[in-house]
Amino acid sequence: MAPVVEKWAEEVRAGDVRALSRAITAIENHDATAEPLLRVLFPHTGEAYLIGVTGAPGTGKSTLVDRLAAHYRKQDEAVGVIAVDPTSPYSGGAILGDRIRMQGHAADAGMFIRSMATRGFLGGLSRTTSEVALLLDAAGKRRILIETVGVGQDEVDIVRLADCVIVVVVPGMGDDIQNMKAGLMEIADIFVVNKSDREGADRVEQQLNAMLSLVMPQHGWHPPVVRTVASEKRGVDTLAETVAKFREHFASRPERQKKHVEHWKKRLLELLESRLLERAVDGAAGEAQLEELACEVAERRKDPFTAVTEILARSGLGVRGQA
Amino acid sequence: MAPVVEKWAEEVRAGDVRALSRAITAIENHDATAEPLLRVLFPHTGEAYLIGVTGAPGTGKSTLVDRLAAHYRKQDEAVGVIAVDPTSPYSGGAILGDRIRMQGHAADAGMFIRSMATRGFLGGLSRTTSEVALLLDAAGKRRILIETVGVGQDEVDIVRLADCVIVVVVPGMGDDIQNMKAGLMEIADIFVVNKSDREGADRVEQQLNAMLSLVMPQHGWHPPVVRTVASEKRGVDTLAETVAKFREHFASRPERQKKHVEHWKKRLLELLESRLLERAVDGAAGEAQLEELACEVAERRKDPFTAVTEILARSGLGVRGQA
Repeated sequence: MAPVVEKWAEEVRAGDVRALSRAITAIENHDATAEPLLRVLFPHTGEAYLIGVTGAPGTGKSTLVDRLAAHYRKQDEAVGVIAVDPTSPYSGGAILGDRIRMQGHAADAGMFIRSMATRGFLGGLSRTTSEVALLLDAAGKRRILIETVGVGQDEVDIVRLADCVIVVVVPGMGDDIQNMKAGLMEIADIFVVNKSDREGADRVEQQLNAMLSLVMPQHGWHPPVVRTVASEKRGVDTLAETVAKFREHFASRPERQKKHVEHWKKRLLELLESRLLERAVDGAAGEAQLEELACEVAERRKDPFTAVTEILARSGLGVRGQA
Repeated sequence: MAPVVEKWAEEVRAGDVRALSRAITAIENHDATAEPLLRVLFPHTGEAYLIGVTGAPGTGKSTLVDRLAAHYRKQDEAVGVIAVDPTSPYSGGAILGDRIRMQGHAADAGMFIRSMATRGFLGGLSRTTSEVALLLDAAGKRRILIETVGVGQDEVDIVRLADCVIVVVVPGMGDDIQNMKAGLMEIADIFVVNKSDREGADRVEQQLNAMLSLVMPQHGWHPPVVRTVASEKRGVDTLAETVAKFREHFASRPERQKKHVEHWKKRLLELLESRLLERAVDGAAGEAQLEELACEVAERRKDPFTAVTEILARSGLGVRGQA
């Protein structure tokens, strides 16, 4: 391994903010330096506890995550926060957001916050998030909070990374809870009714409990409902206790290991995908060919299946006998 | 081409509901029969106008889509509706939903409604949606309405399929509009304030207009805001007129063609991806190998990059000299 990578890895492990930031940028840009770095760091990961926080826009997720992070910092745990907002294509906005959010923790070396919004030409956001979580893990952050706007499959995938998933709702979301459907119900380990000083908090809690009563406990855990007013720090301690209970519940169960294997299956597929696509559509010539074929297909001069067979043949990935 | 595929394609083109349903199921299951069918049908596509409707849960998208569909049916246009709900892993629920939604149109052969919620092991929902849209296009549906819960990247991708994108908001979504951010703002061709008989309709419209005033018109089009009360059919005619205006505006512009080429570039990449993954992880043996490697990685006995290199080598896809 090149000494420069070894040095970089050491800086990351020491929690150096600049080294971490450079590494995240390399991951986001699919830079060739990211893989050797992650290879070196990988054996030093697996110690962090990942907490996913998801909910519709306007539920106060960011405030809740900030308060929870502050709670862990008070207990002297090193904390990493990854805020994922795939609806915003502007990383500029994300960086500005970080600056604003960091103000409360500016002088705190034990806290690292990063927003991610970019999505490359090849490769999805869940891959990037997962690799950034590995970095923070290697950097000694023992609690990693992953915050994401939760509705789409992409967000569900991201949140599935986490060891514990918190789904945030607010009073007045009656329709939304009906519409939340099985997807979010299925991934929630803990529900939070945030802004619970607002009218309708009882009602939304009742609705959640009514829905939960229809669901069988999974692996002996029935998702509890915790009330918070994150803006006033109310309920945050209770939430942290509930997370700790959940962690304890699963610490010795085989499902935890199974979940990690499932996670790595998915991750290996994503890696495979990027590797293969990078080879099939190689550089500027590959993109030009793709563009040309897309034109032909858009004009119905060629069908998409024939086009793909041609790309595979030209890149040397064609099936023998078909290419 | 096998005569059975030819016959099936003819039935689809004639708008036969059973043939269409079978074809959609084949696409959803990545059945080997789907590709030859789509190959035969492809030259007969490109005539439909795709309208994407997206918005948070609880905004009344489904009702709006139903009313808009009814509007087009009254003008004797054949209509297809694709309702995408990736948060629900249960296609059973989706099918039940179809039955309920179909009741109003049960006897109408010019209307086809299908919900989709399943997501296979390999291949994303936007690929499936795009192929189902091709089917409906070949079946002579001249208006295809694609409805999706809109927040995640997956939904943004799906909605990008459409020729015209409608983003639905409701009064009382103040925070949400702030949080909607650039992603949805960027893809919206038309905004709808639904449930506009509720308190706060003026405010939400003002907020939208304030945000829109900060954005440069794209290709000479400034997204208008239309008010509706879909449950009472109010505003639906105006919305249809606005869609028609948008269509006319772009009919002769080069951006339309460019958008189609972009769409096909993305689609070709997705197809490539599935093809290559199917080869890398081939059948039960491939899955077993993947499972085993995922175990080793989860236990930190191997790093993920080495694992992927091994999969590629064993499947004959390894890079020469590296495998």
